[in-house]
Amino acid sequence: MSSTFGRLFRITTFGESHGPALGGIVDGFPAGIRIDMDMISRDMARRRPGSTSLGTKRSENDIPEILSGVFNCVSTGAPIAFIVRNSNQISSHYDDIAHTFRPGHADYTFWKKYGIRDYRGGGRSSGRETLSRCFAGALAKQLLSQKGISVNAGVIAVGGVKASSYIWDPPFENELYAPDCPELPEMISRVEGARASGDSVGGIIECRARGMIAGLGDPVFDKADAILSMAIMSIGGVKGIEFGSGFAAASSLGSENNDQMTEKGFSSNNAGGILGGITTGEDLMMKIAVKPTPSISRAQQTIDENGNGKEIVIKGRHDPCIAIRASVVVEAMTAIALADMLLCKEAYSG
Amino acid sequence: MSSTFGRLFRITTFGESHGPALGGIVDGFPAGIRIDMDMISRDMARRRPGSTSLGTKRSENDIPEILSGVFNCVSTGAPIAFIVRNSNQISSHYDDIAHTFRPGHADYTFWKKYGIRDYRGGGRSSGRETLSRCFAGALAKQLLSQKGISVNAGVIAVGGVKASSYIWDPPFENELYAPDCPELPEMISRVEGARASGDSVGGIIECRARGMIAGLGDPVFDKADAILSMAIMSIGGVKGIEFGSGFAAASSLGSENNDQMTEKGFSSNNAGGILGGITTGEDLMMKIAVKPTPSISRAQQTIDENGNGKEIVIKGRHDPCIAIRASVVVEAMTAIALADMLLCKEAYSG
Amino acid sequence: MSSTFGRLFRITTFGESHGPALGGIVDGFPAGIRIDMDMISRDMARRRPGSTSLGTKRSENDIPEILSGVFNCVSTGAPIAFIVRNSNQISSHYDDIAHTFRPGHADYTFWKKYGIRDYRGGGRSSGRETLSRCFAGALAKQLLSQKGISVNAGVIAVGGVKASSYIWDPPFENELYAPDCPELPEMISRVEGARASGDSVGGIIECRARGMIAGLGDPVFDKADAILSMAIMSIGGVKGIEFGSGFAAASSLGSENNDQMTEKGFSSNNAGGILGGITTGEDLMMKIAVKPTPSISRAQQTIDENGNGKEIVIKGRHDPCIAIRASVVVEAMTAIALADMLLCKEAYSG
Amino acid sequence: MSSTFGRLFRITTFGESHGPALGGIVDGFPAGIRIDMDMISRDMARRRPGSTSLGTKRSENDIPEILSGVFNCVSTGAPIAFIVRNSNQISSHYDDIAHTFRPGHADYTFWKKYGIRDYRGGGRSSGRETLSRCFAGALAKQLLSQKGISVNAGVIAVGGVKASSYIWDPPFENELYAPDCPELPEMISRVEGARASGDSVGGIIECRARGMIAGLGDPVFDKADAILSMAIMSIGGVKGIEFGSGFAAASSLGSENNDQMTEKGFSSNNAGGILGGITTGEDLMMKIAVKPTPSISRAQQTIDENGNGKEIVIKGRHDPCIAIRASVVVEAMTAIALADMLLCKEAYSG
Repeated sequence: MSSTFGRLFRITTFGESHGPALGGIVDGFPAGIRIDMDMISRDMARRRPGSTSLGTKRSENDIPEILSGVFNCVSTGAPIAFIVRNSNQISSHYDDIAHTFRPGHADYTFWKKYGIRDYRGGGRSSGRETLSRCFAGALAKQLLSQKGISVNAGVIAVGGVKASSYIWDPPFENELYAPDCPELPEMISRVEGARASGDSVGGIIECRARGMIAGLGDPVFDKADAILSMAIMSIGGVKGIEFGSGFAAASSLGSENNDQMTEKGFSSNNAGGILGGITTGEDLMMKIAVKPTPSISRAQQTIDENGNGKEIVIKGRHDPCIAIRASVVVEAMTAIALADMLLCKEAYSG
Repeated sequence: MSSTFGRLFRITTFGESHGPALGGIVDGFPAGIRIDMDMISRDMARRRPGSTSLGTKRSENDIPEILSGVFNCVSTGAPIAFIVRNSNQISSHYDDIAHTFRPGHADYTFWKKYGIRDYRGGGRSSGRETLSRCFAGALAKQLLSQKGISVNAGVIAVGGVKASSYIWDPPFENELYAPDCPELPEMISRVEGARASGDSVGGIIECRARGMIAGLGDPVFDKADAILSMAIMSIGGVKGIEFGSGFAAASSLGSENNDQMTEKGFSSNNAGGILGGITTGEDLMMKIAVKPTPSISRAQQTIDENGNGKEIVIKGRHDPCIAIRASVVVEAMTAIALADMLLCKEAYSG
Repeated sequence: MSSTFGRLFRITTFGESHGPALGGIVDGFPAGIRIDMDMISRDMARRRPGSTSLGTKRSENDIPEILSGVFNCVSTGAPIAFIVRNSNQISSHYDDIAHTFRPGHADYTFWKKYGIRDYRGGGRSSGRETLSRCFAGALAKQLLSQKGISVNAGVIAVGGVKASSYIWDPPFENELYAPDCPELPEMISRVEGARASGDSVGGIIECRARGMIAGLGDPVFDKADAILSMAIMSIGGVKGIEFGSGFAAASSLGSENNDQMTEKGFSSNNAGGILGGITTGEDLMMKIAVKPTPSISRAQQTIDENGNGKEIVIKGRHDPCIAIRASVVVEAMTAIALADMLLCKEAYSG
Repeated sequence: MSSTFGRLFRITTFGESHGPALGGIVDGFPAGIRIDMDMISRDMARRRPGSTSLGTKRSENDIPEILSGVFNCVSTGAPIAFIVRNSNQISSHYDDIAHTFRPGHADYTFWKKYGIRDYRGGGRSSGRETLSRCFAGALAKQLLSQKGISVNAGVIAVGGVKASSYIWDPPFENELYAPDCPELPEMISRVEGARASGDSVGGIIECRARGMIAGLGDPVFDKADAILSMAIMSIGGVKGIEFGSGFAAASSLGSENNDQMTEKGFSSNNAGGILGGITTGEDLMMKIAVKPTPSISRAQQTIDENGNGKEIVIKGRHDPCIAIRASVVVEAMTAIALADMLLCKEAYSG
């Protein structure tokens, strides 16, 4: 089931970074919904290389073509397939690393698992795969918005510089897709500094869903937080996730961490909008740790397919901080997971 | 699919804390494996209330009965069903909270989702459900051990006191199930202090799998870390998970975080044993944040089913720190997820 | 997924004919439905050996115990687990065939697949497994009846004697569970004749669902007839299934077989209630071929586990015609499949 | 899961007959297999309209483009996506039936289910969807052929004319894709007669898999025959399926129907190669009933979306007997189901 996610709202993706095309199939999307193509384009543009001055200088012009499931701009209930043709892919950059494993990449594990790999640009493991998630995520957001639910993500820390205080007022229209905060200039210069030195930095993404409804998620294995964790940990480079008070809860007392209730509702939201795996109706709140871009231009020690030690210097134009462009992918996976839970809930509301 | 986890190695659980019995069905367990009942009993005993002096004083004597799938002590390939009868359940403790929502519990969300709930002891959301996971986890461990893989978890922080240094040498035979560390006495007294004051504390569990093989997990949605995250976030009270350097990766440089390789193997394991969603063969390393026990005997504000504000004082005998007994459940879910990935890998090794 | 059926309404079964118990877990059953235990008992009694004078003389007293998911006689939304203890199982009957394959049984294929088998009474392949289906089917029927859908099955042919004409007026309260027809006495004597001669006969079961609603099933792989076929072909001994005009359609003209429509609805129902995989709202109509009981007391040629030829005479008390007791199992699987489709449809009715 | 079939070997399809393109994604295909594109083309050509003089005169030139998962002609383990552009689709033929339901088609049920439909040529329900199955089926056959398993299907009856005797010697290179038999000329003239009179005929397809291995399929719900039934009943127009002696078993005695064994193997194959849901290693044998093409040029009574009665005469170029071209689709679905079972079996052979 590697390439499929979801139970009722299902996304199946395909494609390698240097093959003919990438794309996917969204199955289980309800009939009769008018599709906002501009909104899909905006999300895909935000993910696209070149979307921010802090990203890669590589520019890709990812225009999805819808092949099915939409008739006269309205969904028909049939699976919605889409493709994006690859272009501007310079495979020759990869020739000299065809048989060498880039540190921090899936090169080594692919080779161990499959005994074969499309070494050009990461192949199936490339970040380009996430364009399909953004397409599907945009559809999921349109479904959620009919129930009043919105999903937004922004960068709240890069390379150790954290936003100390911020108002959550998306969309975040700056180079970091970050909420406005005092540390924004320092965060930006941290990313630029990493690029200048041929290095990269990690970051933390916060994601919230507002206008939530209670009752999404199931009590045992399919807890809302379990499904969301799977959805988001499946994004390349994500190394951690927490809900509400998260790791801080581990240092707190029950009397501090419990969200007490009054007739006006919950007095706090340490739960992050989920209790016992089921949404409370409060804002869903998650924080996601993203590692530094593994592709750096500094010399690194590695080995080749024969196990021989080598020094590697990675060429090409890479993001100094993948957390920035990953924020829209986090939104997408959150929206897909929530849309799926919403449909599962509807099944029992009849 | 709420009550089922896994693709080939599958566990389905049932049962409420105050119903007649709990149990489950392990499907997809290979035929011909001699079942070590003692090992199952040890894992279930470690989860059981009363297993540690730092836990609840409530004592449960959870002896599983195997109903199928094992013939002459050997697995037959048929589903292995097991039940544990409930006893020593004092339902009257719950009478006065039958229509009131305990803060930090699933009471409110269950009621919103189902419009009905078995209010005795959390019903389906009770921690007692995890005994089924321990049973299945013990079976999964036996399968993994045939490949040389072992899974262990221990508590490395409680209520803000963190183990500063430790050697990973399981099993951890102390009241905390913690690796030996200088802070152990302080950690223990932190838990006892919380109990004495009618409060509770959170904690952090570390889990490692050793003897790992490369190639488990799939490249896109079914990444090893994605599946493990779902498995572990599905345990009640878990609020965060990280792999390898985890949230610290967000503060680091690519040149620091990448695990370089030499002819002797990986020079570090910031990846936590997973690259691109596929295991590297290095130790799997995870840290898990567990919130403080929500059941505390201090007065808290809440509401009842009619939305009226109330003060609540929770009676009964509860763990001051659920992270302690949760460690074996973390092991179980890790083992189940790995066993499932192992079978999926085998499907392509023919 | 061998032991689980369904997407939202899911049944997982366990148990061998001569183990401690059989049972299962029904997951995804909606909350708030009052459970009619008498109705469950009636269906299980109809399946039970000894229920009809035309069946085995072996008597089993299968009383299910519900272990979870029902609180004060009402479903809670949690999984409903149930077990039936085995008793009156005479394993010694099987000692002399422990290492010999009974013709027409799964003995040989189990041994080839697993290299081990519980040879007592068929183990996991025993018809006793279907008691779990009847339990789950009775629950499914209760869900369907809320929408006005009823499911009934009856025997319309045994050993070559076919009911020439009949009115569909269930329940069919005769020894064959057959609709009233001129051939009924001949059908009964055919079964009795087979028993007298140590032989067995096959039969055809007809199953109809009435009060159907349009829109169940999906257009491509999850067609209503595809899912129903899987559900019913998974019953041991079933060798064929057809919908509506079925195999007769292969001999007909399009102008004969198409169901024309007028303002009053469909003029005929050759489709059997399904067009393009989606229910029309007309009666669902299926016919199912069941092979003769493979356990016969006549001498047969077979081999043992070492491949040596042997003559075998099967002892024990066996049904001369399994189609008779299988009719309620056909109802059960039909109801389970329809309940699942119903919930899937509801997911998109919100 | 409407558009996905399979557990490990998975096919997801998309596309409408008159949209931009159709295609699909094959996920779970093993890495390292050299792909025979000619063989894929041959199977797709056999399905294609115009492939036989007995089919529609409509000609489609379906050349699949592979978008992913194949690198230097070898599978990489990544999902294999493919598309076929639509062309030569004359939508205007459908303008006058845009709001009228064609008898025997999914028009009515689609409209009832979705409240919207792409009325051009059946949309998602069009037989054109099966081109994706043929592509995936050809891949599955290549996987099976590595184990020595071959799958073939041929027409053995049309419009009531049955092949009385034949040797199974595929491929069947005549206009009917039928095994050589005395009735072949009569069968052909029956189809031509139906076309001449503006009518259509049904047919029976036989499908066999040879070189089978024992142990495919699981004992309970995922029986080999259950999965195959679902796979094949999901093909549009199929109304019945039987295995081995099938419906004839219902008229037989146990002593006739049981397949006895000697030291040389099974003495007969009434089981059709499956016992207790698990393959025996004998040839898999199925017969499939296909209804007459619902699109006929004779006047029929129907209603429109407002429920008003109308007479309809269907224009366009349609097959007089869809069983002919459906035979390769039956092969495809059989191969896909067997490939999936094969991988599931491999998971337990480690």
